[in-house]
Amino acid sequence: MITIALPKGALLSDSIELFKGIGLDFSAFLDSKNRQLQITDPTNTAQGLLVRATDVPVYVEYGQAQLGIVGYDLLLEKSPEVAHLGDLNFGGCRMSVAVPKTSPYQNPRELPPNSKIASKFVNCAKTYFQQLDLPVEIIPLYGSVELGPITGMSEAIVDLVSTGRTLKENGLVEVDTLFQSTARLIAHPLSYRLNLDHLNDLSEQIKNSVSKS
Amino acid sequence: MITIALPKGALLSDSIELFKGIGLDFSAFLDSKNRQLQITDPTNTAQGLLVRATDVPVYVEYGQAQLGIVGYDLLLEKSPEVAHLGDLNFGGCRMSVAVPKTSPYQNPRELPPNSKIASKFVNCAKTYFQQLDLPVEIIPLYGSVELGPITGMSEAIVDLVSTGRTLKENGLVEVDTLFQSTARLIAHPLSYRLNLDHLNDLSEQIKNSVSKS
Repeated sequence: MITIALPKGALLSDSIELFKGIGLDFSAFLDSKNRQLQITDPTNTAQGLLVRATDVPVYVEYGQAQLGIVGYDLLLEKSPEVAHLGDLNFGGCRMSVAVPKTSPYQNPRELPPNSKIASKFVNCAKTYFQQLDLPVEIIPLYGSVELGPITGMSEAIVDLVSTGRTLKENGLVEVDTLFQSTARLIAHPLSYRLNLDHLNDLSEQIKNSVSKS
Repeated sequence: MITIALPKGALLSDSIELFKGIGLDFSAFLDSKNRQLQITDPTNTAQGLLVRATDVPVYVEYGQAQLGIVGYDLLLEKSPEVAHLGDLNFGGCRMSVAVPKTSPYQNPRELPPNSKIASKFVNCAKTYFQQLDLPVEIIPLYGSVELGPITGMSEAIVDLVSTGRTLKENGLVEVDTLFQSTARLIAHPLSYRLNLDHLNDLSEQIKNSVSKS
């Protein structure tokens, strides 16, 4: 039986909707009283595994799940060894550089060398500033990245922006976009290549359902 | 004014109690309606900064906070460049190796070479198995580490255990303890050395209040 890793958080309800469209019902994961992290769909066709968004590529890389749904941002940040099967056209957001609206540097290229940049996405931020040829120090934070500039610890942040409300509430403005991100379908490379448990049929069904919607 | 980084989560209420004992009231952080991450105590003596536990050593390392409270587990895992001022005698827990209770390997030394070990504490796990001279592969997970052995992805886990309830609920048993952990007082090394804003008096007060309790 195929196992599908589903991400907790922002992408969950759209992911469950997607699988419902091809006859796989994992909506029990949306029940706030549910404590199960592994469920089989009612038709006994596939198993769903509910894990942290960051852990989805890990389960897929190790073949514990043959399919998974993950944001493009995490694929760029973690570079897991998984097969990228396609864009699912939901969960849209962008990776942005933001600075305080009172900052004298309203363009990332104007940031003084050795500026400090707070981010959860250390690798994305590093690559971006290397491409600008600007030597900066990336400060890895795990939560409330917007506190970086507020406390004066960093000149800017690199973070995922969806509505922009958090930035606005904290007096920050976006000054550049690294890339747009959406949810992606990923697969365990070997399982996909060997077409284990008709994995390719299932992924085709998913892709067809996305292109129709 | 001295800034103190306080960790969200398990150590927060005891940390606030500790500072209350020396006249600094940050209890507004415990109000579930509070959205502020920076508050000044009513006597205008010190500022509290509410951040993720993992981020506390970062703010202290960069000198954005002169004092902080953090679990010993995070100090060992992240090795931040901070001054360790002492044990605060609360937040007790232990870093343990656990395996399924049905596992044939009820001693970590019996795990076959190249076993997989799931953990949020990659560095702690790596050091432990290196000391056992056992080559294993550490799988980094961010949440629900107990899913590692349940899904068959890993033979064992290394995780922080407090009551042991999560392990029990997931059919896992502890087979070794890496170390005991408690909350620790840390300081920004340079601020401490220069005794900025009478930091040393404050840290002495805290240590006295701990030894009395």
